[in-house]
Amino acid sequence: MHDFVSNLQTNFSFHLYLFQMFAVTILGNNSAIPAYDRHPTAQIITINDQLLLIDCGEGTQMQLSKYKIKRGKLNHIFISHLHGDHYFGLIGLVTSMGLLGREQPLHIYGPAGLEAIIQIQLKVADTHLPFELLFHPITKEEVIVDLPKFSVKCFATQHRIPCWGFIIKEKKSPRKISKENVLKFEIPAAYYKELKEGKDYTTKEGVVIFNEQVTIPNSVNRSYAFCADTIYDERLAEVAKDVSLLYHEATYLHALEDRAAARFHSTTVQAATIAKMANAHQLLLGHFSSKYEDLRDFLSEAKAVFPKTYLAIEGVTFLIQK
Amino acid sequence: MHDFVSNLQTNFSFHLYLFQMFAVTILGNNSAIPAYDRHPTAQIITINDQLLLIDCGEGTQMQLSKYKIKRGKLNHIFISHLHGDHYFGLIGLVTSMGLLGREQPLHIYGPAGLEAIIQIQLKVADTHLPFELLFHPITKEEVIVDLPKFSVKCFATQHRIPCWGFIIKEKKSPRKISKENVLKFEIPAAYYKELKEGKDYTTKEGVVIFNEQVTIPNSVNRSYAFCADTIYDERLAEVAKDVSLLYHEATYLHALEDRAAARFHSTTVQAATIAKMANAHQLLLGHFSSKYEDLRDFLSEAKAVFPKTYLAIEGVTFLIQK
Repeated sequence: MHDFVSNLQTNFSFHLYLFQMFAVTILGNNSAIPAYDRHPTAQIITINDQLLLIDCGEGTQMQLSKYKIKRGKLNHIFISHLHGDHYFGLIGLVTSMGLLGREQPLHIYGPAGLEAIIQIQLKVADTHLPFELLFHPITKEEVIVDLPKFSVKCFATQHRIPCWGFIIKEKKSPRKISKENVLKFEIPAAYYKELKEGKDYTTKEGVVIFNEQVTIPNSVNRSYAFCADTIYDERLAEVAKDVSLLYHEATYLHALEDRAAARFHSTTVQAATIAKMANAHQLLLGHFSSKYEDLRDFLSEAKAVFPKTYLAIEGVTFLIQK
Repeated sequence: MHDFVSNLQTNFSFHLYLFQMFAVTILGNNSAIPAYDRHPTAQIITINDQLLLIDCGEGTQMQLSKYKIKRGKLNHIFISHLHGDHYFGLIGLVTSMGLLGREQPLHIYGPAGLEAIIQIQLKVADTHLPFELLFHPITKEEVIVDLPKFSVKCFATQHRIPCWGFIIKEKKSPRKISKENVLKFEIPAAYYKELKEGKDYTTKEGVVIFNEQVTIPNSVNRSYAFCADTIYDERLAEVAKDVSLLYHEATYLHALEDRAAARFHSTTVQAATIAKMANAHQLLLGHFSSKYEDLRDFLSEAKAVFPKTYLAIEGVTFLIQK
């Protein structure tokens, strides 16, 4: 699916992720005005065999084509706020999905005003989509997607207009089956689900097989926090506590801290400080101002505070792991 | 301004155009779904020191940057119809102009529904543009821009929803001053305007200097007809009679004539037939379907009917001339 997968992390082998791939692919990393061939915000989350899209700046459908990402696997789109660099590409993507004959429903989560904007544009073109478009207006902090393999919760960020971040958490059973041992103790497959949840098994003869005899502890659930556009806000460190990968905007370098605050944006050092306070495993920086052509200082300034920092370079896929 | 200027035509030297440059630069040439790095419709018209934009598909602001076209000289935007591939890039362009501090007014001409679509998106973002945005709803065939150097007239095309083409005509005086002769006959500069219009001059002594003694005929006014999206419609040959450069859509090759008609689009052969009937000097084909990666057959099929045919290749500037 992706052009290449970054291998910045070394403590897990790639093969583990074939069971539950969890990664973010950057389609756009620039703030308001596109510049230097950098595009406005858009990120694809791959979780298992599902794709999620977070934000959809102008040109997102072209970026999806460029990086050969399959739209058919995309069923959930999350829009953080209604500044254009976060959603102007949505109507084009939705319309193209219709022209390409999509049939399965598409869920869109975002501020309440979004639906009217999309609908007015479909109406003037007399467009009747061949699939169901389901809008889920975000009004408060809550779990907005709850599926067997993962959940998505939204949280408010402090920006000039109402703005939402998203935290995606994979769901794993607390225990993993030891295939060898369940066969040895002849435990029926129908009982595996209970085993994964930590229950013991009692045979027909009344013999108790303790859970620890047939299972092993699962690895920790991974998580991704997308903190949208935001002013420096220490509450985000609580929201994203212990997250595997924290995406935090860094519109400006440290020297422009005042400008960042005035515009409800953040700097490199502020983003890194939140990552440190949150005890995040890794930090991803994006939403770079068009003022900057060279991004190297973004990396060095943030790394001085939080070493495991990476830049959200377009086309790169970052694995999400503890 | 442009990356390069095509020199497909040879009967005029380039230097003549320094006086009144008249050209079209292709920013997008694809139909509905962007494909093969081809973008939806957008064209820049350069006329003298002014830029006009016709249609504004998604990504137009990025294309303007890519081809180093100066937005500051762009004061008039024309939108043919409200299918997304002709206007989804407008809100992004307008918003970016605001962020870049534009101050001079911007005129937008298009179907009446356009204003509401732009305004709702500015409103939800709480965006207050630092310049005046002037919408001119198109309701009938008429001259919509009338400036000293050129005029723009709109005309209806037959498409699935209301759709407008545009014809841009340069304005030249019928006669040009012969500098040598006006000096010889000592005609005051204040009278040059009348000379250009063909009037004779009478000296204080009552001597009549005939117009032909001090002027030479001007070259013919050049014109560009943008025929938007349209089904095959012979009326367009009348509308664009004797035009210098005719842009006609060719969404499909000849073999898909039935599909073209069913979708209110045209084929290569149909576009070339209109150019021939109109006695156009040259023909420009665009709006290619995403079905086709290779465009060479578009050129050969149309050239068989109308030899002076060119493909609207992105980034290329075509001089408009008789």
